[in-house]
Amino acid sequence: MFPDMKFSIRAANVEDCKDMLRMIMELAEYEKLAEHVKITQSDLEQDGFSKNPLFHGLIAEVPERHKTKEGQTKIGYALYFYTYSSFSGRAVYMEDLYVMPEFRGEGIGKALMSKVAQLGLTAGCNELNFTILNWNKSSLDFYHSLGCYDITTTMGYHCMRCEGEALEHLAQP
Amino acid sequence: MFPDMKFSIRAANVEDCKDMLRMIMELAEYEKLAEHVKITQSDLEQDGFSKNPLFHGLIAEVPERHKTKEGQTKIGYALYFYTYSSFSGRAVYMEDLYVMPEFRGEGIGKALMSKVAQLGLTAGCNELNFTILNWNKSSLDFYHSLGCYDITTTMGYHCMRCEGEALEHLAQP
Repeated sequence: MFPDMKFSIRAANVEDCKDMLRMIMELAEYEKLAEHVKITQSDLEQDGFSKNPLFHGLIAEVPERHKTKEGQTKIGYALYFYTYSSFSGRAVYMEDLYVMPEFRGEGIGKALMSKVAQLGLTAGCNELNFTILNWNKSSLDFYHSLGCYDITTTMGYHCMRCEGEALEHLAQP
Repeated sequence: MFPDMKFSIRAANVEDCKDMLRMIMELAEYEKLAEHVKITQSDLEQDGFSKNPLFHGLIAEVPERHKTKEGQTKIGYALYFYTYSSFSGRAVYMEDLYVMPEFRGEGIGKALMSKVAQLGLTAGCNELNFTILNWNKSSLDFYHSLGCYDITTTMGYHCMRCEGEALEHLAQP
């Protein structure tokens, strides 16, 4: 599609929050979950870029000559943080991986995820974990091609959540 | 079973790591996953109780008169940490919740989880997340009774993992 496509991957900074929020919304729309997005640009700025950040980000950028018709050069991102497994210790969790549709097939998603893997290994992690929607076959194929496996299917791990009134009620002593 | 059962819930400290490891192993054996436990007491001491802890723990204790025949008074634990949702912001993740079999049915598990919920809400979290093995019907019933729901079943979220050689390979630039 772009035979001369060049892109760069770098750590996100606070000036990227506007584009991160735009792409979080694009990803949520693709996932048919846009109504679940409650987060704001200000949340991202505070939670990711103050003294004790709650997450880390990576931004994929293309040169000006490949910018979108809306003028965007920030065309992909990954959002990740460190977690802990009581079986195997330090782990890295990739909350989001996204590349704008017109820039797919150029290795940008793999480059973003590779960087998360590098950073995780450097930080002493033994696992990279993430979730996927089971109908998202193209993403499943992509992740399987990288050697990832589905621990819901193979081992029976299901994701559970408590939120809203149930969480408030549970928290009553 | 113990009509006068009293128990206390408190934050774990570094002296609890031996008992935490014992109970992690008991939980893994119950889950038929004991061969996956690679963690050591020293890992727990360093990762949970140095300057920037990677996890937090809660310990459930019973009085001496209820100690086990092996002399244990630390009879349950929860292990949790904070994560981040790009949809809804701060979240708390409960990695483990465990009560020794002979002390179940006394409200100890619920008290541990309630404390995780309280701490999460105080820290500004909107969600408490965890995973469960789909064959563990008694735990599923317990969590459902607390208003938790299965986002694998309702929304299709599957847990994915990259580890070992696949992770090393992915990390190559």
